[in-house]
Amino acid sequence: MADEGDVFDVIVIGGGPVGITAAARAVRGGLTAALVEERLAGGECQYYACIPSKALLRPMELAAEVGRMPGLELRGPIDADAVLTRRDKSVFHFDDGSMVSAIEGFPTTFVRGRGRLTGPLRAEAEMPDGGTRALQARHAVVIATGSDPAFPDVPGLREARPWTNREATAVEQVPKRLVTIGGGPVGCEMSQALHSLGSRETTMLVHGDRLLPRAEPFASNLLAESFQESGIDVRFGHRPAHVERPVPGGQVTVQAHNGALIEADEILVGCGRWPAVHDIGLETIGLKANGPIEVDDSMRATAVPDGWLYAVGDVNGRNLLTHMGKYQARVCGDVIVARAAGRPDDELALRDTADGRGAPQVIFTDPQICMVGRTESRARADGFNVRAVEYDMGAVAGAQLMADGYTGRAKAVVDQDRRVLLGVTFAGPAVVDLLHGATIAVNAEVPLDLLWHAVPSFPTVSEIWLRLLEAYGL
Amino acid sequence: MADEGDVFDVIVIGGGPVGITAAARAVRGGLTAALVEERLAGGECQYYACIPSKALLRPMELAAEVGRMPGLELRGPIDADAVLTRRDKSVFHFDDGSMVSAIEGFPTTFVRGRGRLTGPLRAEAEMPDGGTRALQARHAVVIATGSDPAFPDVPGLREARPWTNREATAVEQVPKRLVTIGGGPVGCEMSQALHSLGSRETTMLVHGDRLLPRAEPFASNLLAESFQESGIDVRFGHRPAHVERPVPGGQVTVQAHNGALIEADEILVGCGRWPAVHDIGLETIGLKANGPIEVDDSMRATAVPDGWLYAVGDVNGRNLLTHMGKYQARVCGDVIVARAAGRPDDELALRDTADGRGAPQVIFTDPQICMVGRTESRARADGFNVRAVEYDMGAVAGAQLMADGYTGRAKAVVDQDRRVLLGVTFAGPAVVDLLHGATIAVNAEVPLDLLWHAVPSFPTVSEIWLRLLEAYGL
Repeated sequence: MADEGDVFDVIVIGGGPVGITAAARAVRGGLTAALVEERLAGGECQYYACIPSKALLRPMELAAEVGRMPGLELRGPIDADAVLTRRDKSVFHFDDGSMVSAIEGFPTTFVRGRGRLTGPLRAEAEMPDGGTRALQARHAVVIATGSDPAFPDVPGLREARPWTNREATAVEQVPKRLVTIGGGPVGCEMSQALHSLGSRETTMLVHGDRLLPRAEPFASNLLAESFQESGIDVRFGHRPAHVERPVPGGQVTVQAHNGALIEADEILVGCGRWPAVHDIGLETIGLKANGPIEVDDSMRATAVPDGWLYAVGDVNGRNLLTHMGKYQARVCGDVIVARAAGRPDDELALRDTADGRGAPQVIFTDPQICMVGRTESRARADGFNVRAVEYDMGAVAGAQLMADGYTGRAKAVVDQDRRVLLGVTFAGPAVVDLLHGATIAVNAEVPLDLLWHAVPSFPTVSEIWLRLLEAYGL
Repeated sequence: MADEGDVFDVIVIGGGPVGITAAARAVRGGLTAALVEERLAGGECQYYACIPSKALLRPMELAAEVGRMPGLELRGPIDADAVLTRRDKSVFHFDDGSMVSAIEGFPTTFVRGRGRLTGPLRAEAEMPDGGTRALQARHAVVIATGSDPAFPDVPGLREARPWTNREATAVEQVPKRLVTIGGGPVGCEMSQALHSLGSRETTMLVHGDRLLPRAEPFASNLLAESFQESGIDVRFGHRPAHVERPVPGGQVTVQAHNGALIEADEILVGCGRWPAVHDIGLETIGLKANGPIEVDDSMRATAVPDGWLYAVGDVNGRNLLTHMGKYQARVCGDVIVARAAGRPDDELALRDTADGRGAPQVIFTDPQICMVGRTESRARADGFNVRAVEYDMGAVAGAQLMADGYTGRAKAVVDQDRRVLLGVTFAGPAVVDLLHGATIAVNAEVPLDLLWHAVPSFPTVSEIWLRLLEAYGL
């Protein structure tokens, strides 16, 4: 059976954090696995997204905190070179050697190549040398190819070679003038990071009327106010009509639909992402590569007979967030193990319940925007009997001690029928670790009457929990 | 009935945060209340403990964070004058006018005077002018007199006029040399705060073999290492045998039992606290003023017939923490309202369940020590079927991004029979807001199998939750 290629229990196509997690969980359950990745093991997240963006943002956050604290003074602006050096370390200087070693240590067979399905339970890796390695799976193939940046259809945009998250997070020289298209997480985080590192003219063109359209409106507003105070020029209702960059690497000019002209040294596109389903062999099993791979709550592709194909992470379109992809990969790896062993496959750990309840998300800007579950409008649209309460975080003693002029706000969305939280949003400086309590409360559906007995320590920012419950009437 | 004095539904003796909360909840429920306080409304916590200590500690924490972040540099050491000025603002310059206005706005009658019981449902306030105001309660009297610092019985100590939390948090001139007796929360926090603000020789004499004896040992050790690295001289197994201060305000000399001599400019005693039951008239209702006032889970004093006396906060000895006192006060105020109205008094909100599960506590040092519920040894002593897991927080991606050389550790104590958390400890920089998630999980007894679906955002320090659950075997 040599022409069937190497045989593994599980083949994972895509070696980002999500694919790695799926392989790790399958191997932990006693299966063998191969992981196929064309580019760097560790994926977009490790080298061009989550990790380096936070390395670029953290100094800005800390500098802002110092600015709000009498008795401390920075010697000068942020030393961008030092920050870029630290960023380089955080991405292992774009060397995935230690990551590959970790994968091989699971143990999992790491195959460097372009992974493609070639039929049911079959795949191939197109190797860097042009050769092809055939692979066969006994139990399952997992697609974890992630997503690619989306580009709006604007004349001249692609020709201008715009930055995406990849180029922005890998920045070597901070552009003096930056124009960003889009007000989502990537646009917000990278505009503020680059602005803090030396981009003197930072302009954001935002199609709609607010930043972070999926967040609670108050959070969008707080962020926009902070951006404008720091000198970032946020222009709402602006769509690019035309982009020009006559000289490669030279000045770029964006003309908006309303006639406004913005000149900049670099252009960054943050307009969402699309599942990476192109050229991964979906057609060999009768699927169309025109959108996310739909899966059930065990991560199994619904359109594939015999249930051997799984898809986890961005490629299934559920929630384009690394941690949710890794979560799905834990479910997926474990369910493959259970099914391979003929064990019951319906226990709680073998179903994705968290994506449906609303994934947690952190925008690492200053202020940070942290949210989990449903926004008020989403909860109403989903038919819940909703009551929402808000509270000024700046009125909490712990926040006042954290920073002079602390500005922040929190909101809780309650299902009145069951008295459980449907969603929570915190917007303020350094609120990131407040979020996980809300993630627990939303996902475990902890009743408000039990949350009332979870006493926040005094004087901490966490006392916002008490204030929200009091505001609800407890 | 003029000699019975003014009549209120509820009389609260003690106007700290706990007494204020009890009055507020009673009034919210439709009752009238009087609040008697001899000193500043807002209490020890607002002027001499929680609030000013955190105002003194926060700049140190932030300076340490800057020191762990390449690209940022402070111009010099912390400007102690600026920090003391900010501290003064945080305690309203020791003026309780706005606090009294807030109390009166509930509305509650604020009586400035020394409060004492004079018999069942009766009390008096000894006014600053020497007069006495008699008070009568229709439904309940609430004792919320708090606690006083405890002093070890050491020859010469009292005569040396040592600092307690009061003088240390109200510091006007940072002593160049400080010696601290005790390694509990007050000793740790104030030694580090004053060390960061200019105390060049800071020596801690610790009776036992570790700091924070009620914390997990690893947390004590991390803190001691940090203290020693920063130059604080922590001496374990040292008990003061004799203290001398020949000239008031002059140099103080402490001789330890082992013969060691420490000279300092100021001496701070942090040796725990005792319930403030002295001279509050307990003997007029047949109680002895020799220890905490024992209460049931509705905060009612167990030794008093007819159930009209309640005690909340430090004075009942349950947990000497402001937030737990306020929690008890919410229970107490609400249960008094229910009983006054003849309503059922046994619903969940009307019983203290949180003190028994183990209160959350934060030591605002660098590293911060945050804990809730039972330590492993306490859980074993209480007879639980325990398994504990630990994880190096410095191995979490979010922590590595937060700070270079991030050092921290977390521990979860699990009841194996019920698969719920009994306790959690986080020790590391800026971990304070991680705690409330653990407080929710411990108090609501969220099963591990549900916590598994509460996905921490990537890349945050909160991913420690995932690592702890994985370490447990999920």
